[in-house]
Amino acid sequence: MTSVTQQRGVTRKEYWSWVRDASALATALGYPVQAEMINEGTGIVFGEDQYAAFEAGLWSGDPFEVMIILESLNEGAVSGLPSGAESFAEYGGLCDKLMILHPGKWCPPHYHPRKTESYEVVLGEMDVIYGPQPVDDGSQRLAAGHVPAGTAWPAGLEVPAGREESYEKLTSYVRLKKGDPKFVMHRRHLHAFRCPPDSSVPLVVREISTYSHEPTEAQSDIHRPLAHWSGINDNAFVHPAADDGRLATRFLD
Amino acid sequence: MTSVTQQRGVTRKEYWSWVRDASALATALGYPVQAEMINEGTGIVFGEDQYAAFEAGLWSGDPFEVMIILESLNEGAVSGLPSGAESFAEYGGLCDKLMILHPGKWCPPHYHPRKTESYEVVLGEMDVIYGPQPVDDGSQRLAAGHVPAGTAWPAGLEVPAGREESYEKLTSYVRLKKGDPKFVMHRRHLHAFRCPPDSSVPLVVREISTYSHEPTEAQSDIHRPLAHWSGINDNAFVHPAADDGRLATRFLD
Amino acid sequence: MTSVTQQRGVTRKEYWSWVRDASALATALGYPVQAEMINEGTGIVFGEDQYAAFEAGLWSGDPFEVMIILESLNEGAVSGLPSGAESFAEYGGLCDKLMILHPGKWCPPHYHPRKTESYEVVLGEMDVIYGPQPVDDGSQRLAAGHVPAGTAWPAGLEVPAGREESYEKLTSYVRLKKGDPKFVMHRRHLHAFRCPPDSSVPLVVREISTYSHEPTEAQSDIHRPLAHWSGINDNAFVHPAADDGRLATRFLD
Amino acid sequence: MTSVTQQRGVTRKEYWSWVRDASALATALGYPVQAEMINEGTGIVFGEDQYAAFEAGLWSGDPFEVMIILESLNEGAVSGLPSGAESFAEYGGLCDKLMILHPGKWCPPHYHPRKTESYEVVLGEMDVIYGPQPVDDGSQRLAAGHVPAGTAWPAGLEVPAGREESYEKLTSYVRLKKGDPKFVMHRRHLHAFRCPPDSSVPLVVREISTYSHEPTEAQSDIHRPLAHWSGINDNAFVHPAADDGRLATRFLD
Repeated sequence: MTSVTQQRGVTRKEYWSWVRDASALATALGYPVQAEMINEGTGIVFGEDQYAAFEAGLWSGDPFEVMIILESLNEGAVSGLPSGAESFAEYGGLCDKLMILHPGKWCPPHYHPRKTESYEVVLGEMDVIYGPQPVDDGSQRLAAGHVPAGTAWPAGLEVPAGREESYEKLTSYVRLKKGDPKFVMHRRHLHAFRCPPDSSVPLVVREISTYSHEPTEAQSDIHRPLAHWSGINDNAFVHPAADDGRLATRFLD
Repeated sequence: MTSVTQQRGVTRKEYWSWVRDASALATALGYPVQAEMINEGTGIVFGEDQYAAFEAGLWSGDPFEVMIILESLNEGAVSGLPSGAESFAEYGGLCDKLMILHPGKWCPPHYHPRKTESYEVVLGEMDVIYGPQPVDDGSQRLAAGHVPAGTAWPAGLEVPAGREESYEKLTSYVRLKKGDPKFVMHRRHLHAFRCPPDSSVPLVVREISTYSHEPTEAQSDIHRPLAHWSGINDNAFVHPAADDGRLATRFLD
Repeated sequence: MTSVTQQRGVTRKEYWSWVRDASALATALGYPVQAEMINEGTGIVFGEDQYAAFEAGLWSGDPFEVMIILESLNEGAVSGLPSGAESFAEYGGLCDKLMILHPGKWCPPHYHPRKTESYEVVLGEMDVIYGPQPVDDGSQRLAAGHVPAGTAWPAGLEVPAGREESYEKLTSYVRLKKGDPKFVMHRRHLHAFRCPPDSSVPLVVREISTYSHEPTEAQSDIHRPLAHWSGINDNAFVHPAADDGRLATRFLD
Repeated sequence: MTSVTQQRGVTRKEYWSWVRDASALATALGYPVQAEMINEGTGIVFGEDQYAAFEAGLWSGDPFEVMIILESLNEGAVSGLPSGAESFAEYGGLCDKLMILHPGKWCPPHYHPRKTESYEVVLGEMDVIYGPQPVDDGSQRLAAGHVPAGTAWPAGLEVPAGREESYEKLTSYVRLKKGDPKFVMHRRHLHAFRCPPDSSVPLVVREISTYSHEPTEAQSDIHRPLAHWSGINDNAFVHPAADDGRLATRFLD
């Protein structure tokens, strides 16, 4: 007897409802949403098993790695740099994005070799966990600045089933809310975040960062300011499925 | 017979009314205003003659160079850069500020050798004028990216009396409004902007940019991520009085 | 051969996704949403055939009669009235509600014998159609005030299939947007409204009105300020199925 | 020797700065401000002595009775009432206004024989004090509904100098904030409210009420839905100077 494996994914109706309601929420909050920011890469599911989020519904509060990213700016800021800056320019630039997560949902553990980012909560509250020390690969690095210490995880910080191990090194915790000072996550620090499962609203966060080197499908044909940037992937996910999964949406229809 | 020269400045009552009402407007618009962002450098007057703005009142619609800056983030993003990046780091980093200008008021003509910035209108409308070509000092510069062409100035774009010449090279014009895509002003481009004089609200603009090297009094004791940054002034104002004037507020009492 | 009749309704997952995303949108827009405003009566479907809206999805743009009502105030304002006012009090009182409609969706044609209401668009744009003259039942009525004239319907104002006739007497049209003056719809005027089908956001309208006499299931056990109010239904829908349908939600699970 | 009595009032520059900044704040908060809502009656000073508020400046935190009212709706809702309702209609109708008070500033003690009102805090926090029982003039009144009990005044609730007595009967206290349920103040209850003096923002409150019978100068030529309404003053201020003072603004220039 052969077992039937259910193919996991999301229906287009459910995907577009998710993305369009989130985009309307962003517009309501004053974010400069443009039509071209809304496409099949706007909603991100970090691996096939995470599509189970849609079976219970995005409001179930269950922990899954699914999120919305609306990016209003990704500017290399290469123009006008002095000659010789080519190999350092990939650490600069400007990115502005709005990230929207339903209750219980996570942006999974990862770090950026190049990108330094900052958070501003726009709606709801944000549970951030992170590695207090930068990832060490033996390279020589400048050391000014640091991520504030945080506390130990609070009781009941539920992470996605089957992915517990990928969260283990993110031992520092902080809760951010609307009106707080900007929180800076320096490059090379592991981090993840979620919307608290008992929230009555999705978490909405504005992230201001240096240039976002994102090799998603939606971005594959985007012009890069320097030729060698098209080969850069600045996302290092702890769980391998998270990296693969986010690159394309699996539709059931 | 000796002439009496009236000393120009602003009363503390008028200054704090301006700054606190603007900060409340920023909070109402969701900007993460912190108490330490509100001080004697928050309101900027670009030269002694520009204090005349307070004689007619900030709602007169008259053209003067006075504005509010609320800065929620100025992060060098030096931490974790590769060794050797020290001399290029000053072109990177992250700054997030909210700028508030009453009707008719201008941010005066200037450019930044290092800083690339972007505008997002949050309230009201924004008249931007700029140099379509970067300032050329003979140095070798990378050329990717450019500022969109714009149009000629519309009729009736009133600039401050006595400072007309400083606006002459900013021949391109664009009107930006809430909901528009981000508008990027690359480093080395002359630019200035204002709130239209017939507006019923102050212009409120969020500027996301690379690090802001600002040698104002309020910032003189701020820690710099690299030692040599404390000597950098990245603001090149066309009118010499604009640069001097902004460094400190002249109080009448 | 027997034909199979499909039972129409909405799954609980889809209902709660609709209601909770709309409530979050309301909160994002500053409306004082309370937990007790969110229940099985918050989303309203005006008749069994209108559940087809969920088959295509709420973002399809198709014309159906489905909407969200979040009511933050329904106060009889009876306390302190002079003796003798009992029989007139039902024309007074205060109600504040937020109504949310997805693109293409309608609040169906109806009028109120008692309630006078006003509209304030909070997000998106609002197509209102109405009867320019009050419904005449031969009773003696005071005549001060009137609803402004409006224009004829624009081309392409698509109404729900099978319900065209119920829209015919609402010959006046007006488009309302955020920032417009309040628009008053006096009692006894037929009216209906929708979110334009090409909108990128749901229509969100704040309605300030006199007391809302609504005999829905969710309100059946609510205390009435005067005993005889519990028998009042102040909604007169043109299409009989609209009135029945709204009283309870048909769940498929 | 004759003493010099300083004439108290406000300069037009200061008045318009107050009113226009507050109107911009209202617009920023999404209130549908119209040009005709902004005039010499928009800012209200409750008596000659209260102009001292402008000497220290509106941000001093000192207790004075000055406030802004922006009224977007005042609808009699008389149209379509049954014959015989003429004498009761003045207890109904609809009013929507936004009230803006700087830190420390009060709306002074008063009650309305006819108007029932409700509060929704939009920005900042609101200290409300009120009489827990309706004012009794011996007339027969309907009794349904009541104002919740409140607590005793907190320590340090500073009231305007010289007007302490007028606050004495308002023994109940409640603090309201953004997101709270609507708070109903029934007709015939004494009430007053203020913005806490240590607030970083003005208090902004939306009041939904029955028709506002306000005999101010700005409203003297407004059409009334019933002829006898033009003689109604529905405001009963405890301090006689509060009532006189609010009727016109005293300008110093």
